[in-house]
Amino acid sequence: MTEFGQLKVGVLGGTGPQGRGLALRWAKAGISVVLGSRAADRAETAAKELREAAGVEHVTGLDNAACAADSDIVLVAVPWDGHRELLESLRDELTGKIVIDCVNPLGFDKQGPFALAVEEGSAAQQAERVLPDSRVTAAFHHVSAVLLGDLSVEAVDIDVLVLGDDREATDTVRALADTIPGMRGVYGGRLRNAHQVEALTANLIAINKRYKAHAGLRITDV
Amino acid sequence: MTEFGQLKVGVLGGTGPQGRGLALRWAKAGISVVLGSRAADRAETAAKELREAAGVEHVTGLDNAACAADSDIVLVAVPWDGHRELLESLRDELTGKIVIDCVNPLGFDKQGPFALAVEEGSAAQQAERVLPDSRVTAAFHHVSAVLLGDLSVEAVDIDVLVLGDDREATDTVRALADTIPGMRGVYGGRLRNAHQVEALTANLIAINKRYKAHAGLRITDV
Repeated sequence: MTEFGQLKVGVLGGTGPQGRGLALRWAKAGISVVLGSRAADRAETAAKELREAAGVEHVTGLDNAACAADSDIVLVAVPWDGHRELLESLRDELTGKIVIDCVNPLGFDKQGPFALAVEEGSAAQQAERVLPDSRVTAAFHHVSAVLLGDLSVEAVDIDVLVLGDDREATDTVRALADTIPGMRGVYGGRLRNAHQVEALTANLIAINKRYKAHAGLRITDV
Repeated sequence: MTEFGQLKVGVLGGTGPQGRGLALRWAKAGISVVLGSRAADRAETAAKELREAAGVEHVTGLDNAACAADSDIVLVAVPWDGHRELLESLRDELTGKIVIDCVNPLGFDKQGPFALAVEEGSAAQQAERVLPDSRVTAAFHHVSAVLLGDLSVEAVDIDVLVLGDDREATDTVRALADTIPGMRGVYGGRLRNAHQVEALTANLIAINKRYKAHAGLRITDV
Protein backbone atom coordinates (compact mmCIF):
# COMPACT_ATOMS: atom_id res chain seq x y z
CA MET A 1 0.00 0.00 0.00
CA THR A 2 2.40 2.68 -1.13
CA GLU A 3 -0.35 5.17 -1.72
CA PHE A 4 -1.91 4.99 1.74
CA GLY A 5 1.26 3.90 3.53
CA GLN A 6 1.67 7.18 5.39
CA LEU A 7 -2.03 7.94 5.83
CA LYS A 8 -4.34 6.94 8.64
CA VAL A 9 -7.99 6.32 7.89
CA GLY A 10 -10.34 7.16 10.74
CA VAL A 11 -13.80 5.62 11.04
CA LEU A 12 -16.32 7.62 13.07
CA GLY A 13 -18.91 5.14 14.24
CA GLY A 14 -16.27 2.46 13.90
CA THR A 15 -18.06 0.09 16.25
CA GLY A 16 -21.17 -0.06 14.02
CA PRO A 17 -21.47 -2.82 11.41
CA GLN A 18 -20.71 -0.70 8.33
CA GLY A 19 -17.75 1.18 9.79
CA ARG A 20 -16.34 -1.92 11.39
CA GLY A 21 -16.66 -3.92 8.19
CA LEU A 22 -14.85 -1.33 6.08
CA ALA A 23 -12.20 -0.90 8.79
CA LEU A 24 -11.57 -4.64 8.77
CA ARG A 25 -11.07 -4.69 5.02
CA TRP A 26 -8.80 -1.65 5.03
CA ALA A 27 -6.76 -3.10 7.86
CA LYS A 28 -6.38 -6.32 5.86
CA ALA A 29 -5.23 -4.21 2.91
CA GLY A 30 -2.40 -2.80 4.99
CA ILE A 31 -3.92 0.57 5.79
CA SER A 32 -3.59 2.07 9.29
CA VAL A 33 -7.08 2.46 10.73
CA VAL A 34 -8.35 4.36 13.75
CA LEU A 35 -11.78 3.34 15.02
CA GLY A 36 -13.78 6.11 16.63
CA SER A 37 -16.68 5.69 19.03
CA ARG A 38 -18.40 7.77 21.67
CA ALA A 39 -16.51 5.83 24.32
CA ALA A 40 -12.79 5.23 23.82
CA ASP A 41 -12.90 1.90 25.64
CA ARG A 42 -15.57 0.53 23.29
CA ALA A 43 -13.48 1.67 20.33
CA GLU A 44 -10.39 -0.01 21.72
CA THR A 45 -12.32 -3.24 22.36
CA ALA A 46 -13.52 -3.24 18.74
CA ALA A 47 -9.99 -2.39 17.55
CA LYS A 48 -8.60 -5.36 19.43
CA GLU A 49 -11.15 -7.64 17.76
CA LEU A 50 -10.24 -6.26 14.34
CA ARG A 51 -6.52 -6.67 14.98
CA GLU A 52 -7.13 -10.31 15.78
CA ALA A 53 -9.53 -10.89 12.89
CA ALA A 54 -7.25 -9.21 10.36
CA GLY A 55 -4.00 -10.49 11.89
CA VAL A 56 -2.50 -7.00 11.90
CA GLU A 57 -1.28 -4.46 14.47
CA HIS A 58 -2.23 -1.17 12.80
CA VAL A 59 -5.76 -0.74 14.17
CA THR A 60 -6.38 1.49 17.17
CA GLY A 61 -9.49 2.72 18.96
CA LEU A 62 -10.15 6.22 20.29
CA ASP A 63 -13.11 8.43 21.08
CA ASN A 64 -14.57 10.13 18.01
CA ALA A 65 -12.78 13.47 18.56
CA ALA A 66 -9.39 11.86 19.03
CA CYS A 67 -10.06 9.58 16.06
CA ALA A 68 -10.82 12.60 13.86
CA ALA A 69 -7.76 14.46 15.10
CA ASP A 70 -5.45 11.49 14.62
CA SER A 71 -6.59 10.56 11.09
CA ASP A 72 -5.81 11.92 7.63
CA ILE A 73 -8.99 10.68 5.92
CA VAL A 74 -12.18 10.24 7.93
CA LEU A 75 -15.16 8.01 7.14
CA VAL A 76 -18.42 9.10 8.74
CA ALA A 77 -20.33 5.88 9.48
CA VAL A 78 -22.60 7.02 12.29
CA PRO A 79 -26.39 6.68 12.53
CA TRP A 80 -28.32 9.42 10.74
CA ASP A 81 -29.85 10.39 14.04
CA GLY A 82 -27.07 12.50 15.56
CA HIS A 83 -25.13 12.97 12.28
CA ARG A 84 -25.27 16.75 12.28
CA GLU A 85 -24.45 17.17 15.96
CA LEU A 86 -21.43 14.87 15.79
CA LEU A 87 -19.97 16.65 12.77
CA GLU A 88 -20.56 20.06 14.33
CA SER A 89 -18.61 18.92 17.37
CA LEU A 90 -15.67 17.80 15.20
CA ARG A 91 -15.33 20.81 12.92
CA ASP A 92 -11.85 21.71 14.14
CA GLU A 93 -10.52 18.16 14.07
CA LEU A 94 -11.79 17.66 10.51
CA THR A 95 -10.49 20.92 9.05
CA GLY A 96 -8.59 20.37 5.79
CA LYS A 97 -9.22 16.64 5.77
CA ILE A 98 -10.99 14.42 3.30
CA VAL A 99 -14.29 13.39 4.87
CA ILE A 100 -16.22 10.46 3.40
CA ASP A 101 -19.89 10.37 4.31
CA CYS A 102 -21.56 6.98 3.88
CA VAL A 103 -24.69 7.71 5.90
CA ASN A 104 -28.10 6.73 4.48
CA PRO A 105 -30.99 8.74 5.94
CA LEU A 106 -33.72 6.10 5.90
CA GLY A 107 -36.95 5.50 7.73
CA PHE A 108 -38.75 2.18 8.17
CA ASP A 109 -42.42 1.38 8.54
CA LYS A 110 -44.70 -1.58 7.86
CA GLN A 111 -44.02 -1.26 4.12
CA GLY A 112 -40.28 -1.36 4.61
CA PRO A 113 -37.59 1.26 4.10
CA PHE A 114 -38.00 4.71 2.58
CA ALA A 115 -35.82 7.76 2.09
CA LEU A 116 -36.09 10.53 4.66
CA ALA A 117 -36.28 14.14 3.52
CA VAL A 118 -33.09 16.01 4.45
CA GLU A 119 -33.12 19.78 4.69
CA GLU A 120 -29.74 20.14 3.00
CA GLY A 121 -30.67 17.60 0.29
CA SER A 122 -28.63 14.66 1.58
CA ALA A 123 -26.48 13.54 4.49
CA ALA A 124 -23.40 14.38 2.42
CA GLN A 125 -24.61 17.91 1.72
CA GLN A 126 -25.39 18.34 5.39
CA ALA A 127 -21.80 17.33 6.13
CA GLU A 128 -20.54 19.82 3.58
CA ARG A 129 -22.66 22.57 5.13
CA VAL A 130 -21.48 21.77 8.65
CA LEU A 131 -17.83 21.30 7.61
CA PRO A 132 -17.06 24.14 5.19
CA ASP A 133 -13.30 23.72 5.71
CA SER A 134 -13.23 19.97 5.03
CA ARG A 135 -13.14 18.17 1.69
CA VAL A 136 -16.43 16.34 1.84
CA THR A 137 -17.13 13.35 -0.39
CA ALA A 138 -19.82 10.66 -0.32
CA ALA A 139 -19.17 6.96 -0.89
CA PHE A 140 -19.56 3.41 0.45
CA HIS A 141 -23.35 3.69 0.83
CA HIS A 142 -24.19 0.29 -0.60
CA VAL A 143 -21.58 -2.07 0.79
CA SER A 144 -23.01 -4.97 2.71
CA ALA A 145 -21.76 -5.04 6.30
CA VAL A 146 -22.39 -8.80 6.28
CA LEU A 147 -20.09 -9.40 3.30
CA LEU A 148 -17.45 -6.99 4.61
CA GLY A 149 -17.35 -8.71 7.96
CA ASP A 150 -17.12 -12.23 6.57
CA LEU A 151 -13.48 -12.81 5.66
CA SER A 152 -14.41 -16.07 3.95
CA VAL A 153 -15.78 -13.70 1.26
CA GLU A 154 -12.43 -12.94 -0.34
CA ALA A 155 -13.66 -10.41 -2.90
CA VAL A 156 -16.42 -7.89 -2.20
CA ASP A 157 -17.56 -7.62 -5.80
CA ILE A 158 -19.25 -4.24 -6.05
CA ASP A 159 -18.66 -0.77 -7.39
CA VAL A 160 -18.60 2.10 -4.94
CA LEU A 161 -19.98 5.36 -6.27
CA VAL A 162 -17.78 8.24 -5.10
CA LEU A 163 -19.33 11.69 -5.21
CA GLY A 164 -17.83 15.07 -4.63
CA ASP A 165 -16.82 18.38 -6.12
CA ASP A 166 -13.08 18.09 -5.31
CA ARG A 167 -11.46 15.96 -7.99
CA GLU A 168 -8.36 15.10 -5.99
CA ALA A 169 -10.48 14.08 -3.01
CA THR A 170 -12.78 11.82 -5.05
CA ASP A 171 -9.73 10.27 -6.74
CA THR A 172 -8.25 9.48 -3.32
CA VAL A 173 -11.52 7.95 -2.11
CA ARG A 174 -11.77 5.89 -5.28
CA ALA A 175 -8.28 4.58 -4.63
CA LEU A 176 -9.33 3.75 -1.08
CA ALA A 177 -12.20 1.66 -2.44
CA ASP A 178 -9.81 -0.02 -4.86
CA THR A 179 -7.70 -1.32 -1.97
CA ILE A 180 -10.46 -3.79 -1.03
CA PRO A 181 -10.35 -6.92 -3.22
CA GLY A 182 -13.28 -7.00 -5.65
CA MET A 183 -14.31 -3.44 -4.90
CA ARG A 184 -13.92 -0.62 -7.39
CA GLY A 185 -14.34 3.10 -6.86
CA VAL A 186 -16.27 4.82 -9.64
CA TYR A 187 -16.80 8.57 -9.81
CA GLY A 188 -20.53 9.07 -9.37
CA GLY A 189 -21.15 12.79 -9.80
CA ARG A 190 -21.24 15.98 -7.79
CA LEU A 191 -22.23 16.12 -4.17
CA ARG A 192 -25.58 17.69 -5.08
CA ASN A 193 -26.47 14.34 -6.63
CA ALA A 194 -25.78 12.40 -3.41
CA HIS A 195 -29.40 12.15 -2.24
CA GLN A 196 -30.42 9.49 -4.71
CA VAL A 197 -27.32 7.42 -4.03
CA GLU A 198 -28.06 7.46 -0.31
CA ALA A 199 -31.77 6.80 -0.88
CA LEU A 200 -31.09 3.92 -3.27
CA THR A 201 -30.13 1.93 -0.19
CA ALA A 202 -33.86 1.59 0.45
CA ASN A 203 -34.22 -0.15 -2.92
CA LEU A 204 -31.28 -2.43 -2.22
CA ILE A 205 -32.88 -3.41 1.09
CA ALA A 206 -36.09 -4.25 -0.80
CA ILE A 207 -34.05 -6.30 -3.27
CA ASN A 208 -32.29 -8.10 -0.42
CA LYS A 209 -35.63 -9.01 1.07
CA ARG A 210 -37.18 -10.22 -2.19
CA TYR A 211 -34.16 -12.18 -3.42
CA LYS A 212 -32.59 -13.17 -0.09
CA ALA A 213 -29.41 -11.47 -1.24
CA HIS A 214 -26.74 -9.00 -0.21
CA ALA A 215 -27.27 -6.81 -3.25
CA GLY A 216 -24.78 -4.26 -4.50
CA LEU A 217 -24.17 -2.28 -7.69
CA ARG A 218 -21.91 -2.72 -10.63
CA ILE A 219 -21.66 0.04 -13.21
CA THR A 220 -21.58 -1.38 -16.73
CA ASP A 221 -19.42 -0.05 -19.61
CA VAL A 222 -16.96 1.59 -17.17
CA MET B 1 -42.50 -15.10 -27.22
CA THR B 2 -45.30 -17.20 -25.84
CA GLU B 3 -45.78 -14.96 -22.87
CA PHE B 4 -46.28 -11.74 -24.82
CA GLY B 5 -47.59 -13.35 -27.97
CA GLN B 6 -51.11 -12.05 -27.55
CA LEU B 7 -50.18 -8.76 -25.96
CA LYS B 8 -49.43 -5.44 -27.59
CA VAL B 9 -46.95 -3.09 -25.98
CA GLY B 10 -47.64 0.58 -26.57
CA VAL B 11 -44.95 3.23 -26.31
CA LEU B 12 -46.16 6.75 -25.57
CA GLY B 13 -43.45 9.05 -26.81
CA GLY B 14 -42.41 6.33 -29.19
CA THR B 15 -40.64 8.71 -31.54
CA GLY B 16 -38.19 9.84 -28.82
CA PRO B 17 -34.84 8.08 -28.47
CA GLN B 18 -35.66 6.04 -25.34
CA GLY B 19 -39.09 4.86 -26.45
CA ARG B 20 -37.92 4.15 -29.96
CA GLY B 21 -34.92 2.18 -28.74
CA LEU B 22 -36.99 -0.04 -26.46
CA ALA B 23 -39.63 -0.48 -29.16
CA LEU B 24 -36.95 -1.62 -31.59
CA ARG B 25 -35.65 -4.23 -29.17
CA TRP B 26 -39.12 -5.50 -28.30
CA ALA B 27 -40.04 -5.71 -31.96
CA LYS B 28 -36.87 -7.73 -32.58
CA ALA B 29 -37.91 -10.01 -29.71
CA GLY B 30 -41.17 -10.78 -31.50
CA ILE B 31 -43.46 -8.53 -29.48
CA SER B 32 -46.18 -6.49 -31.20
CA VAL B 33 -45.44 -2.81 -30.62
CA VAL B 34 -47.54 0.29 -31.12
CA LEU B 35 -45.65 3.56 -31.26
CA GLY B 36 -47.54 6.58 -29.97
CA SER B 37 -46.81 10.20 -30.78
CA ARG B 38 -48.70 13.47 -30.74
CA ALA B 39 -49.10 13.21 -34.50
CA ALA B 40 -50.15 9.87 -35.98
CA ASP B 41 -48.17 10.44 -39.17
CA ARG B 42 -44.93 10.96 -37.26
CA ALA B 43 -45.64 7.76 -35.31
CA GLU B 44 -46.27 5.84 -38.51
CA THR B 45 -43.07 7.18 -40.08
CA ALA B 46 -41.10 6.01 -37.05
CA ALA B 47 -42.94 2.66 -37.11
CA LYS B 48 -41.97 2.15 -40.73
CA GLU B 49 -38.31 2.80 -39.87
CA LEU B 50 -38.48 0.33 -37.01
CA ARG B 51 -40.15 -2.33 -39.18
CA GLU B 52 -37.29 -1.99 -41.63
CA ALA B 53 -34.57 -1.89 -38.97
CA ALA B 54 -35.96 -4.89 -37.12
CA GLY B 55 -37.06 -6.77 -40.22
CA VAL B 56 -40.53 -7.37 -38.80
CA GLU B 57 -44.11 -6.40 -39.60
CA HIS B 58 -45.62 -6.07 -36.12
CA VAL B 59 -44.87 -2.38 -35.43
CA THR B 60 -47.54 0.24 -35.99
CA GLY B 61 -47.77 3.96 -35.31
CA LEU B 62 -50.77 5.88 -33.95
CA ASP B 63 -51.46 9.05 -32.04
CA ASN B 64 -50.93 8.71 -28.29
CA ALA B 65 -54.61 8.20 -27.43
CA ALA B 66 -55.11 5.50 -30.07
CA CYS B 67 -51.81 3.89 -29.02
CA ALA B 68 -52.97 3.73 -25.40
CA ALA B 69 -56.37 2.35 -26.41
CA ASP B 70 -54.89 -0.28 -28.72
CA SER B 71 -52.24 -1.60 -26.32
CA ASP B 72 -52.30 -4.01 -23.38
CA ILE B 73 -49.18 -2.71 -21.65
CA VAL B 74 -48.12 0.91 -22.04
CA LEU B 75 -44.67 2.43 -21.61
CA VAL B 76 -44.64 6.14 -20.81
CA ALA B 77 -41.50 7.53 -22.45
CA VAL B 78 -42.46 11.16 -22.88
CA PRO B 79 -40.54 14.25 -21.73
CA TRP B 80 -41.10 15.19 -18.08
CA ASP B 81 -42.45 18.50 -19.26
CA GLY B 82 -46.02 17.57 -20.18
CA HIS B 83 -46.01 14.20 -18.39
CA ARG B 84 -48.92 14.93 -16.11
CA GLU B 85 -51.10 16.52 -18.79
CA LEU B 86 -50.61 13.64 -21.22
CA LEU B 87 -51.50 11.02 -18.62
CA GLU B 88 -54.55 12.99 -17.48
CA SER B 89 -55.77 13.03 -21.07
CA LEU B 90 -55.38 9.23 -21.37
CA ARG B 91 -57.01 8.14 -18.12
CA ASP B 92 -59.83 6.26 -19.85
CA GLU B 93 -57.61 4.57 -22.41
CA LEU B 94 -55.21 3.39 -19.68
CA THR B 95 -57.83 2.06 -17.25
CA GLY B 96 -56.98 -1.44 -16.03
CA LYS B 97 -53.72 -1.59 -17.95
CA ILE B 98 -50.16 -2.02 -16.80
CA VAL B 99 -48.43 1.34 -17.20
CA ILE B 100 -44.64 1.50 -17.11
CA ASP B 101 -43.22 4.92 -16.35
CA CYS B 102 -39.58 5.41 -17.36
CA VAL B 103 -39.51 9.19 -17.12
CA ASN B 104 -36.59 10.89 -15.34
CA PRO B 105 -37.42 14.39 -14.06
CA LEU B 106 -34.04 16.06 -14.49
CA GLY B 107 -32.80 19.60 -14.85
CA PHE B 108 -29.52 20.71 -16.40
CA ASP B 109 -27.32 23.70 -15.66
CA LYS B 110 -23.65 24.59 -16.03
CA GLN B 111 -22.73 21.94 -13.47
CA GLY B 112 -24.59 19.23 -15.34
CA PRO B 113 -27.71 17.25 -14.52
CA PHE B 114 -29.63 17.28 -11.26
CA ALA B 115 -32.89 15.79 -9.98
CA LEU B 116 -35.96 17.98 -10.07
CA ALA B 117 -38.29 18.08 -7.09
CA VAL B 118 -41.62 16.42 -7.91
CA GLU B 119 -44.68 17.23 -5.85
CA GLU B 120 -45.87 13.62 -5.80
CA GLY B 121 -42.35 12.35 -5.00
CA SER B 122 -41.48 10.99 -8.44
CA ALA B 123 -42.75 10.78 -11.99
CA ALA B 124 -44.03 7.28 -11.27
CA GLN B 125 -45.98 8.43 -8.23
CA GLN B 126 -47.42 11.27 -10.26
CA ALA B 127 -48.58 8.70 -12.80
CA GLU B 128 -50.11 6.64 -10.02
CA ARG B 129 -51.92 9.68 -8.67
CA VAL B 130 -53.23 10.67 -12.11
CA LEU B 131 -54.14 7.09 -13.10
CA PRO B 132 -55.80 5.55 -10.04
CA ASP B 133 -57.41 2.81 -12.15
CA SER B 134 -54.21 1.72 -13.89
CA ARG B 135 -51.52 -0.63 -12.61
CA VAL B 136 -48.57 1.75 -12.48
CA THR B 137 -45.00 0.49 -12.38
CA ALA B 138 -41.65 2.21 -12.94
CA ALA B 139 -38.81 0.71 -14.96
CA PHE B 140 -36.33 1.20 -17.83
CA HIS B 141 -34.93 4.46 -16.42
CA HIS B 142 -31.29 3.71 -17.08
CA VAL B 143 -31.18 2.06 -20.47
CA SER B 144 -28.97 3.83 -22.97
CA ALA B 145 -30.91 4.92 -26.03
CA VAL B 146 -27.64 4.76 -27.97
CA LEU B 147 -27.06 1.09 -27.14
CA LEU B 148 -30.70 0.17 -27.69
CA GLY B 149 -30.72 1.77 -31.11
CA ASP B 150 -27.49 0.17 -32.26
CA LEU B 151 -28.36 -3.35 -33.40
CA SER B 152 -24.66 -4.17 -33.73
CA VAL B 153 -24.83 -4.25 -29.92
CA GLU B 154 -26.36 -7.70 -29.66
CA ALA B 155 -26.79 -7.80 -25.88
CA VAL B 156 -27.77 -4.78 -23.81
CA ASP B 157 -26.03 -5.93 -20.65
CA ILE B 158 -27.84 -4.16 -17.84
CA ASP B 159 -30.32 -4.82 -15.08
CA VAL B 160 -33.61 -2.94 -15.16
CA LEU B 161 -35.02 -2.07 -11.76
CA VAL B 162 -38.78 -2.63 -11.78
CA LEU B 163 -40.75 -0.86 -9.06
CA GLY B 164 -44.37 -1.13 -8.09
CA ASP B 165 -46.87 -2.25 -5.49
CA ASP B 166 -48.68 -4.78 -7.72
CA ARG B 167 -46.70 -8.00 -7.72
CA GLU B 168 -48.25 -9.43 -10.87
CA ALA B 169 -47.63 -6.19 -12.74
CA THR B 170 -43.98 -5.95 -11.70
CA ASP B 171 -43.49 -9.62 -12.63
CA THR B 172 -44.90 -8.92 -16.10
CA VAL B 173 -42.65 -5.90 -16.55
CA ARG B 174 -39.63 -7.90 -15.41
CA ALA B 175 -40.49 -10.51 -18.02
CA LEU B 176 -40.75 -7.75 -20.61
CA ALA B 177 -37.22 -6.61 -19.73
CA ASP B 178 -36.03 -10.20 -19.95
CA THR B 179 -37.13 -10.41 -23.60
CA ILE B 180 -34.27 -8.11 -24.61
CA PRO B 181 -30.97 -10.00 -24.93
CA GLY B 182 -28.57 -9.13 -22.10
CA MET B 183 -31.22 -7.27 -20.13
CA ARG B 184 -32.65 -8.55 -16.88
CA GLY B 185 -35.62 -7.27 -14.91
CA VAL B 186 -34.97 -7.07 -11.16
CA TYR B 187 -37.64 -6.11 -8.65
CA GLY B 188 -36.49 -2.81 -7.18
CA GLY B 189 -38.96 -1.92 -4.45
CA ARG B 190 -42.25 -0.15 -3.97
CA LEU B 191 -43.33 2.79 -6.05
CA ARG B 192 -42.66 5.18 -3.19
CA ASN B 193 -38.97 4.40 -3.68
CA ALA B 194 -39.02 5.41 -7.36
CA HIS B 195 -37.62 8.91 -6.91
CA GLN B 196 -34.06 7.82 -6.30
CA VAL B 197 -34.13 5.42 -9.23
CA GLU B 198 -35.29 8.19 -11.55
CA ALA B 199 -32.82 10.67 -10.06
CA LEU B 200 -29.90 8.25 -10.33
CA THR B 201 -29.99 8.93 -14.06
CA ALA B 202 -28.24 12.22 -13.22
CA ASN B 203 -25.36 10.24 -11.72
CA LEU B 204 -25.21 7.92 -14.71
CA ILE B 205 -24.99 10.96 -16.99
CA ALA B 206 -22.09 12.25 -14.88
CA ILE B 207 -20.44 8.84 -15.14
CA ASN B 208 -20.95 8.79 -18.90
CA LYS B 209 -19.27 12.16 -19.17
CA ARG B 210 -16.30 11.27 -16.96
CA TYR B 211 -15.66 7.83 -18.45
CA LYS B 212 -16.92 8.36 -22.00
CA ALA B 213 -19.29 5.46 -21.45
CA HIS B 214 -22.91 4.37 -21.78
CA ALA B 215 -23.19 3.39 -18.14
CA GLY B 216 -25.87 1.13 -16.75
CA LEU B 217 -26.45 -0.87 -13.59
CA ARG B 218 -25.99 -4.48 -12.63
CA ILE B 219 -27.28 -5.70 -9.30
CA THR B 220 -24.80 -8.07 -7.68
CA ASP B 221 -25.70 -11.23 -5.73
CA VAL B 222 -29.10 -11.49 -7.47
